[in-house]
Amino acid sequence: MKKAVFYHAGCPVCVAAEDIVAQAVDRQRYDLEIVHFAKNSHRIAEAEAVGVKSVPALVLDSQVFHINFGASMDDVKAIV
Amino acid sequence: MKKAVFYHAGCPVCVAAEDIVAQAVDRQRYDLEIVHFAKNSHRIAEAEAVGVKSVPALVLDSQVFHINFGASMDDVKAIV
Repeated sequence: MKKAVFYHAGCPVCVAAEDIVAQAVDRQRYDLEIVHFAKNSHRIAEAEAVGVKSVPALVLDSQVFHINFGASMDDVKAIV
Repeated sequence: MKKAVFYHAGCPVCVAAEDIVAQAVDRQRYDLEIVHFAKNSHRIAEAEAVGVKSVPALVLDSQVFHINFGASMDDVKAIV
């Protein structure tokens, strides 16, 4: 099972993406975790280390996919 | 079955995304079509109509998700 992590910060663009992305990811191949930075600010360093620059972002097997643009990680760090 | 369309233009960012996105989409829920604009320039108008602004982009059930940034649609139109 591969690992998928959807990082977001509760922004409108994030929330719109969350449901659809969560539905679209093949759960038979990916173990999907959803991380909300406002609730899990200790996960910010891990996300930045893997290359997350903005939210929402989906990390599939360590590859970062920035999906649309909700907020930069600087904006995220300013509010959490 | 819902419809998923991955639009791209053969750019390096597109190619990197294509394989992983194609693997990650749940094929039991989504019928996935991959459209390469350089080979299917007649699909550009359809993509723009649904809101595609840059490639690569994944349209899930009419919702557009721009994935990272490879090229703008203006760039795409300039080369195809």
